[in-house]
Amino acid sequence: MLFWQNFFKNSILRDDEHSKQNNNHEELIILKQVAYNNNEIDVYFSTNKNINLYHLEQLCDEVGWVRRPLKKIQTAIENSFLIVSLFYKQNNKEQLIGFARVTSDHAFNATVWDVAIRPSFQGQGLGKILIHQVIHQLRESEITTITLFADPQVVNFYSHLGFLTDPSGVKGMFWYPK
Amino acid sequence: MLFWQNFFKNSILRDDEHSKQNNNHEELIILKQVAYNNNEIDVYFSTNKNINLYHLEQLCDEVGWVRRPLKKIQTAIENSFLIVSLFYKQNNKEQLIGFARVTSDHAFNATVWDVAIRPSFQGQGLGKILIHQVIHQLRESEITTITLFADPQVVNFYSHLGFLTDPSGVKGMFWYPK
Repeated sequence: MLFWQNFFKNSILRDDEHSKQNNNHEELIILKQVAYNNNEIDVYFSTNKNINLYHLEQLCDEVGWVRRPLKKIQTAIENSFLIVSLFYKQNNKEQLIGFARVTSDHAFNATVWDVAIRPSFQGQGLGKILIHQVIHQLRESEITTITLFADPQVVNFYSHLGFLTDPSGVKGMFWYPK
Repeated sequence: MLFWQNFFKNSILRDDEHSKQNNNHEELIILKQVAYNNNEIDVYFSTNKNINLYHLEQLCDEVGWVRRPLKKIQTAIENSFLIVSLFYKQNNKEQLIGFARVTSDHAFNATVWDVAIRPSFQGQGLGKILIHQVIHQLRESEITTITLFADPQVVNFYSHLGFLTDPSGVKGMFWYPK
């Protein structure tokens, strides 16, 4: 877990340096050098729930998810325990490039939903950083069981981050309306 | 789904008859004739979050769960979207015999946790009724995806209630502190 230790150490250092600039946004730089359009740009991290829904919809469109009503998305965000977003700044405007949200009982369990990284930013470790941040935030809140439901193509991704599939034979199960 | 249709029809009828008696408790009789100590007793249903924590702890002890701090259980209940309990009355006091709770984003997804039926009441269909009530309540709130993590010995139980294991290869995954 050396990467992770360094990662959080760097995050905290950078937090000290930068986060006081904008208390409303609880932002910190977590990666200074991500490639985008032949430039290197700063990627910021935020847990602010006041997220631009149209930007989120655009992100979800880009990763190919079925559109959902914005009003319901707003409700879901308000009632999530944790929202994590990654963004960069262009002309002082935030550009959303990563998102995840978590439901929880605020005590024992949490479930991660809607993990997305903008396709043009994939392959640079941002998904890993996003999930590390989710884990870090939940551990700060003393949540001990972090769960999620992984599509087949991302099971390995989560396995590498320490998530176990069906531990002790526990099975993820779904009920949908008929 | 004939049983279920009849079940809810009966519930609603009984709700009309009985629930107005005690508006604070939103109670309704869901089973009139459950065997207990050679008697037939009425089993009540409630979604009231104001549950006696010591009774809940006793129920959890009886089903063999590891004890958890009551303060954290209280927090978990307060931050659950839905609490469902089954109880009977003895000398006008409620005796807890079944429990389940649900976290949710209040919009799309819900996850069922801590499902328990008092061992001396098991084998009479109360677990099935409890989960049917959970589904019914969530559908009333227009939640479309109901999830849970099932121990191996209850996977068949949930399958019979319409829950699917790993649909489209989606895997339940867990992260625990090292």
